[in-house]
Amino acid sequence: MNKPVYLDYNATTPIAPEVLAAMRPFLEEDFGNPSSSHVYGLRAREAVALARLQVAELMGAHPEEICFTGGATEANNLAIQGAARALPSRRHLVTSAIEHPSVLAPIRALEAQGWDVTIVSVDAYGRVPIAAAARAMREDTALVSIMHANNETGTVQPICEIAAAAHARGALMHTDAAQSAGKVALDVRALGVDFLTLAGHKFYAPKGIGALYRAAAAPPLVPILFGAGQEAGMRPGTENVPAIVALGRAAQLAQQGLGTFPVHLATLRDHLYHILKSQIPGLCLNGHPTERLPNTLNVSFPRIDATTLLATVASEVAASVGSACHGDALEGSTTLNAMGLARERVAGALRFSVGRYLDKAQIDYAARALVSAPCVTVVAASINR
Amino acid sequence: MNKPVYLDYNATTPIAPEVLAAMRPFLEEDFGNPSSSHVYGLRAREAVALARLQVAELMGAHPEEICFTGGATEANNLAIQGAARALPSRRHLVTSAIEHPSVLAPIRALEAQGWDVTIVSVDAYGRVPIAAAARAMREDTALVSIMHANNETGTVQPICEIAAAAHARGALMHTDAAQSAGKVALDVRALGVDFLTLAGHKFYAPKGIGALYRAAAAPPLVPILFGAGQEAGMRPGTENVPAIVALGRAAQLAQQGLGTFPVHLATLRDHLYHILKSQIPGLCLNGHPTERLPNTLNVSFPRIDATTLLATVASEVAASVGSACHGDALEGSTTLNAMGLARERVAGALRFSVGRYLDKAQIDYAARALVSAPCVTVVAASINR
Repeated sequence: MNKPVYLDYNATTPIAPEVLAAMRPFLEEDFGNPSSSHVYGLRAREAVALARLQVAELMGAHPEEICFTGGATEANNLAIQGAARALPSRRHLVTSAIEHPSVLAPIRALEAQGWDVTIVSVDAYGRVPIAAAARAMREDTALVSIMHANNETGTVQPICEIAAAAHARGALMHTDAAQSAGKVALDVRALGVDFLTLAGHKFYAPKGIGALYRAAAAPPLVPILFGAGQEAGMRPGTENVPAIVALGRAAQLAQQGLGTFPVHLATLRDHLYHILKSQIPGLCLNGHPTERLPNTLNVSFPRIDATTLLATVASEVAASVGSACHGDALEGSTTLNAMGLARERVAGALRFSVGRYLDKAQIDYAARALVSAPCVTVVAASINR
Repeated sequence: MNKPVYLDYNATTPIAPEVLAAMRPFLEEDFGNPSSSHVYGLRAREAVALARLQVAELMGAHPEEICFTGGATEANNLAIQGAARALPSRRHLVTSAIEHPSVLAPIRALEAQGWDVTIVSVDAYGRVPIAAAARAMREDTALVSIMHANNETGTVQPICEIAAAAHARGALMHTDAAQSAGKVALDVRALGVDFLTLAGHKFYAPKGIGALYRAAAAPPLVPILFGAGQEAGMRPGTENVPAIVALGRAAQLAQQGLGTFPVHLATLRDHLYHILKSQIPGLCLNGHPTERLPNTLNVSFPRIDATTLLATVASEVAASVGSACHGDALEGSTTLNAMGLARERVAGALRFSVGRYLDKAQIDYAARALVSAPCVTVVAASINR
């Protein structure tokens, strides 16, 4: 049986062959512990140092500003819990209504421990209004955490302006860029953030590895984990050398591909949208029309239950209702609800996220399956009647 | 250049070929996110479920008692921080003087937050005396954390008896078994522990993966990380599927090999010891002569600086002074100092830890290099004179 066309790259990506090739020696003969003083340890230490440089270069940072973590969830928790605890005299946190649970949940946990929290609403495109974010900030705001690009709609946030407002209040700024790497350019200086989260498995590196950028000028974070002092004491534990090497190589590929990958992604994404739009009357786009990741297409099928549609085309198309990480099945997408979309529009929304290894023929195949699904053709006929 | 003979398996092991073969499909075509509802997600979910069963079986647990983590450091932190916070009315913690930093450091962090801590001393063999451990426990002891086997000497602790004493006081019992898996049998019911830590890269699985056993009857742990609810809310973040699969396969191999691996390890270890002992007058064993991991040999070379000796034989032997994870260079091994050994004996101590892929010829080669090192022969001649 052929597998369905994978249009769920925002949930996770395959590992790039170049990345797997880079990590392979460290899964095999170069297996040393970077803390060992012998040659096995030295090889591992050198590989980690190179990867740190590659990850730093992807975002215009210095290598010593990169801390490797076990994934983006850990990086988000380290930034949020670590920054809140680093500034004990400031007891207020600002975030948005459309953050990933790995941002919202640690903020809620801090709220339960006595911090004040303000959740900023988004507009109908899923953008955090700069003025609303600025108004939410207070003299005692410790941290503002707003994602760089939304996982469900792809809408890109005005991080630079929000970071400036945060700094004007003396607050620190964190952005979860898990969905951005390899899709849009990342520059921590231009964004003006103090902390930035990367997720390996969202840009062709393996699962179980992430990184947190921490500006050299930012205060030291209070660690979540305590141990033998690796990662300058910010994140102890034997370094996951093969995955770190993979993250470095993936960062290098992402940077080298910035001139080509986004164009390829947008071409495929827009091709899918044009077919669906032309064949399905009433189909509408969710998220910002232009300020959006080039690979993400969130559309609402009229008078359709998206879960049913996905089940119908399950052998041809792998996409998702909302994000993989939310329990969206019951209430529907957190992001689309926060955008104030009508219930029917939320219920009919599907997220398609394309990636590096797709071609136009696969998009055509998937689009054909969607357009000719019985529940879709029935509705289309009734609308056209 | 040939690499030196690797006698540092307690620092980290290579990945077993069978383990790498098991994880390979999940590094390649089966790359789905276990939270996705499509077939890619389903394959990943099924693989994680199988691995959970395999890990549970290694220690006589139920699959739902296994929580995958990013490594043993995280598992130790989750058990210690999580249990301490789960029992807020009990403000006392007990541990030993020879724990790994990933146990000692979170306990020290809790101490800084107001918990009382008692550190139990060890005897000259590096054993935690049962009576001393029991005496350290109080009515308000929340958690007792004592390692199963020491990373530097291999000395195995009387966990079963200490756990019984802890339970008699109403305290919870955690053991860091990072060094035990695949070397000795593990049975959480026989040990009587509430929590047990495993480290993938200490038993032929990759770095960056570990597991925490939490007895079904133990109270729920307060998580360290907050996010999308994976691992029953105990440890959020997209599951590291290839590494989890690897841990499962490594657990299966460890269990299947319990009749053969330990014998092989002890044979090699004792062969090394007999050569060194017979050739180097005054060489002495550190750790317990019998209650010890079958692969670990910690010996003190008389009148020798172990760091110098290691540097001298660096192209023939890869071993370590103390553990890879401690900054032992300056003060010398924490464990050996805690055992009350004389300064010269600590300074001359080397840890050799053998593994599955070594043979007798490699041990002979390494032993020859050690015995014929100039600093060793000079001392031997002066002692024999």
